[in-house]
Amino acid sequence: MSNADRKIAVAGCGLIGRAWAITFARGGYQVGLYDKADGAVSGACLYIEQVLPELQANNLLNGASPGDVMDRLIECDSLEHALDGAEYVQESTLEDVEVKKAVFTQLDEVATPETIIASSTSAILPSAFSEHVPGRHRCLVAHPINPPYLVPAVEVVPAPWTDDDVRQRTGELMRSVGQQPIMMEREIDGFVMNRMQGALLQEAFRLVAGGYASTEDIDIGIREGLGQRWSFMGPFETIDLNAPAGVADYIARFEGMYSTMAQTQRDPVPWTGDLSGKVESERREFLAADKLGERSKWRDKRLMALRAHQNSQTKTDSEQ
Amino acid sequence: MSNADRKIAVAGCGLIGRAWAITFARGGYQVGLYDKADGAVSGACLYIEQVLPELQANNLLNGASPGDVMDRLIECDSLEHALDGAEYVQESTLEDVEVKKAVFTQLDEVATPETIIASSTSAILPSAFSEHVPGRHRCLVAHPINPPYLVPAVEVVPAPWTDDDVRQRTGELMRSVGQQPIMMEREIDGFVMNRMQGALLQEAFRLVAGGYASTEDIDIGIREGLGQRWSFMGPFETIDLNAPAGVADYIARFEGMYSTMAQTQRDPVPWTGDLSGKVESERREFLAADKLGERSKWRDKRLMALRAHQNSQTKTDSEQ
Repeated sequence: MSNADRKIAVAGCGLIGRAWAITFARGGYQVGLYDKADGAVSGACLYIEQVLPELQANNLLNGASPGDVMDRLIECDSLEHALDGAEYVQESTLEDVEVKKAVFTQLDEVATPETIIASSTSAILPSAFSEHVPGRHRCLVAHPINPPYLVPAVEVVPAPWTDDDVRQRTGELMRSVGQQPIMMEREIDGFVMNRMQGALLQEAFRLVAGGYASTEDIDIGIREGLGQRWSFMGPFETIDLNAPAGVADYIARFEGMYSTMAQTQRDPVPWTGDLSGKVESERREFLAADKLGERSKWRDKRLMALRAHQNSQTKTDSEQ
Repeated sequence: MSNADRKIAVAGCGLIGRAWAITFARGGYQVGLYDKADGAVSGACLYIEQVLPELQANNLLNGASPGDVMDRLIECDSLEHALDGAEYVQESTLEDVEVKKAVFTQLDEVATPETIIASSTSAILPSAFSEHVPGRHRCLVAHPINPPYLVPAVEVVPAPWTDDDVRQRTGELMRSVGQQPIMMEREIDGFVMNRMQGALLQEAFRLVAGGYASTEDIDIGIREGLGQRWSFMGPFETIDLNAPAGVADYIARFEGMYSTMAQTQRDPVPWTGDLSGKVESERREFLAADKLGERSKWRDKRLMALRAHQNSQTKTDSEQ
């Protein structure tokens, strides 16, 4: 069955839901959009219509035209309509555990038994909102980095009662639209990405608090340093290539250094108070508060250009 | 004074020294190369001659030709010759504190009083090899990510006795050749970049050890996720744009989440033993041991293409 005969439901059409709709529709699926707020679905579709031409200009629509992609969107006035015939529903409502509990109850009632029910939540464990759901075996988290149509990683996080088949099918569905699933074996606070970001941020704040370097110096260390390689190789591949005989060799050479360092990285410094003021004022030297929105648009343009660059590189790789 | 009238000495012409020579010569400086091993200097120059055309093809020679850059290299048969007229010497010898001590003694004897003496060391504190040096006020660390001609970040790390003027002049020199100095205020084990890499690696190993995700899943989380933004924005700018009112707003919203998480990120797991074996075998599924060298060449090509891409983006930004 080609993706064109397959349908996905998007429940909640805010910033995340509409970005998912682009991702799935670009991937060839029919997408049923629903949001309980009046006008939210048509608002999302208008937004999507504005985004698609720029994606096409960067060759990021899989060869489809914006019109082709728009034709795959189905504006629905009920959850039943959105879920009708859908094999998977992506929930993107408020980040509130009580809201998620209620929405998952409702989704489980409406969806046909084999439909997968996935939440976009970035911070709530799947066990926290699905335990009470009769069909909890088909509930899990599929957490993107926003926007998923520009950043491929998606955390697929099962609750303890999620069927492994549901987890696997979610991973396959993500791959079928060009995403890169992180197939977690079990849940943990922060999943994978926020845990790694958190570990790095703790050290970044610690270095600023200790007066070793400024926020901009820290940013240079990532942006002009480590982040270059990390944009096309993960941390394990990076160290695999940084010792003559690979990662085990790297561990043998450098674990001692990192282990000693880790003894001074145990305690988080408090981010609030003076440190927050210092970081805020150092950031404002580089970006005025009234330019935050403009800079966010710049970030999205850079992400898009980077994606186009990386696709051209991957193409070159596979031709070699 | 244009860079063409200025000279830098490179002491030690291995992998790091020859990469520095490219960086400084591309930046317009005359570069005196010296290495005590027979044939090392001419070997370095042959290597550089092979690298330059590819840099030119990616528009990474500041408009100079490979021949122009080669003409700025001065093959020296003594340290005195290399240092003659040099305002700065970049030491890139063995990563061994006793070796560095001896080399710094010698460099301090030969160099004119105003010459800055900088070490490329990645892991030895500047205080550890410069305390005994009569001219220790002009000694410090300038640690690159290799190769510096593709990765701009350089850690400028003073010892407690380094003159601030020396630190500042080193930063200016780095900027004058297109590098991005991280201007550390004082030394600490791991400097800035290895401390952040270490914090991230500890969490990566911890997640694999706990059975939450595989090494490849962790790599996806960075490569296809966080690393995308980190290739053009540091972690502070990233969070500055991830809350409506900027970084102080982000801290107010999310410090609690990260702080709770940090309580489970205190203790490093041992990397050696079973975990080393697991990570090694998981990496070998993606890259055979006999392909490590080939993959390193791929990495360098990707770094070069990324640099060219980023230069084109920066150009577009500044035209807006």
